[in-house]
Amino acid sequence: MTSNAPATPVLDIARIEALLDASFPQIHSGGRNLVIEQVGHHTACVRLKTQARNIRPGGTVSGPAMFTLADFAVYVAIIGNLGESGIEAVTTNMNINFLSKPEPRDMTAHVRLLRLGRRLAVGEVEITSDGSPDMVAHAIATYSLPSQR
Amino acid sequence: MTSNAPATPVLDIARIEALLDASFPQIHSGGRNLVIEQVGHHTACVRLKTQARNIRPGGTVSGPAMFTLADFAVYVAIIGNLGESGIEAVTTNMNINFLSKPEPRDMTAHVRLLRLGRRLAVGEVEITSDGSPDMVAHAIATYSLPSQR
Amino acid sequence: MTSNAPATPVLDIARIEALLDASFPQIHSGGRNLVIEQVGHHTACVRLKTQARNIRPGGTVSGPAMFTLADFAVYVAIIGNLGESGIEAVTTNMNINFLSKPEPRDMTAHVRLLRLGRRLAVGEVEITSDGSPDMVAHAIATYSLPSQR
Amino acid sequence: MTSNAPATPVLDIARIEALLDASFPQIHSGGRNLVIEQVGHHTACVRLKTQARNIRPGGTVSGPAMFTLADFAVYVAIIGNLGESGIEAVTTNMNINFLSKPEPRDMTAHVRLLRLGRRLAVGEVEITSDGSPDMVAHAIATYSLPSQR
Repeated sequence: MTSNAPATPVLDIARIEALLDASFPQIHSGGRNLVIEQVGHHTACVRLKTQARNIRPGGTVSGPAMFTLADFAVYVAIIGNLGESGIEAVTTNMNINFLSKPEPRDMTAHVRLLRLGRRLAVGEVEITSDGSPDMVAHAIATYSLPSQR
Repeated sequence: MTSNAPATPVLDIARIEALLDASFPQIHSGGRNLVIEQVGHHTACVRLKTQARNIRPGGTVSGPAMFTLADFAVYVAIIGNLGESGIEAVTTNMNINFLSKPEPRDMTAHVRLLRLGRRLAVGEVEITSDGSPDMVAHAIATYSLPSQR
Repeated sequence: MTSNAPATPVLDIARIEALLDASFPQIHSGGRNLVIEQVGHHTACVRLKTQARNIRPGGTVSGPAMFTLADFAVYVAIIGNLGESGIEAVTTNMNINFLSKPEPRDMTAHVRLLRLGRRLAVGEVEITSDGSPDMVAHAIATYSLPSQR
Repeated sequence: MTSNAPATPVLDIARIEALLDASFPQIHSGGRNLVIEQVGHHTACVRLKTQARNIRPGGTVSGPAMFTLADFAVYVAIIGNLGESGIEAVTTNMNINFLSKPEPRDMTAHVRLLRLGRRLAVGEVEITSDGSPDMVAHAIATYSLPSQR
């Protein structure tokens, strides 16, 4: 990283995973399918590994699986950029557009935080399927942030 | 039903369940937790039975579980009112607001179809927890409808 | 009102109008087309009077006009139920669905506050055209509430 | 443009403006404040010139003005990329997040079409104020496209 690089996030991937495992063991109840691949300044990248439970007949990934991926990815970006107090952030609104039918493959969510304020965080999520450049879903999530920070 | 009652839906609960079991066996992969309680003229009511996988520490039901409930409930209302062709309806947009922290109990989704057109259906969903009158979540889902009808 | 009636709102229509005239004279810059018809416990009803500027060729009311009506109506419900401090509430999110083409007539927005919390208010809006029972638009607006209350 | 450039849009700015003037003269009823600055492959850029009617006390641009800008900008991107038939496209849904208080200056909407299908178009809009890099609003608009194309 050069001296012109944006600030590094507060927590790295290992620390975020440890926090999540301690606070939300249920997240990975179906197996470790949500993998944090990158956390940066106001950004994050999370992979959803394919699993039979999420595949519908006709071979597409389910809407709820994509919702979970988007929600989790924004949460990761918030924790990575706010620090430990971000664990208490809660989703207040999610708007998700399903743009095209995804292949039954791994999916990746790229998050950009549009706003990281005192009370609210707003994250934009682009979801793509492995092997295709087309966006399969796009979401905007709003999180309410903990007050004591 | 009196002669002034609105039209009955096209399919009853048993027929809807049979269609779903045949087309989407994965829906109930985690157990039959989504129970169709009522289907009426442009309405539906679906219960989500509590399960450990959906409960977060602190005893609340997860956002993804509520998304799944809302999505499924609108889908049921569409199939019940359109008929078998409704099986091919796909979610294009979901906007969900999480209003208050739900208790770790069963939840119910009440659906009202705001629009059931030629190409699009829009359903409004109110989600409540057993034992409390307060709405825990509110959603608006838009579905694209199959073209040959 | 009977003894079982919900609490009355904090401010009546006259007081709300006076507050708005003092703080936001621009609201009525195009003429007094937004008329507060009713304010109740977590509810409000506002009329948008038809005007040439809002009518598109083909005789329908414009999307921006409906957005303005929905936004204003939720704001009125908040001020009426919170009191004067509600003037400082600001819209953070609006999700609006346009359901059917409206007639070039007056429109009415019926608001129900789904949530009136410490930090956020969420209002649901149903918009209808005079002379027709069908909903022409449906919106959910989220407002951030002032902190000192 | 190099040989690697994406396809040019179907209509250029002058043609789009002529179409809009013929079909929707009311758009500019308050003066020509919406200026098309650029139309590209699945993109567009539109400027909203500042005017007293849109400025609230405290010097910020109104929510409805930003909604109008976003809606118009996506519409321009659709017409520019579909051709004349795009004039019949109608907004079915708009989700807009107001991220920070804008200065009382000109605003610019940058549009990227996330989807331009057979029936639906989905456009993402980033709105910024002159003189500041921060996004003041972000919107996702869904349009229903005319069937005979």
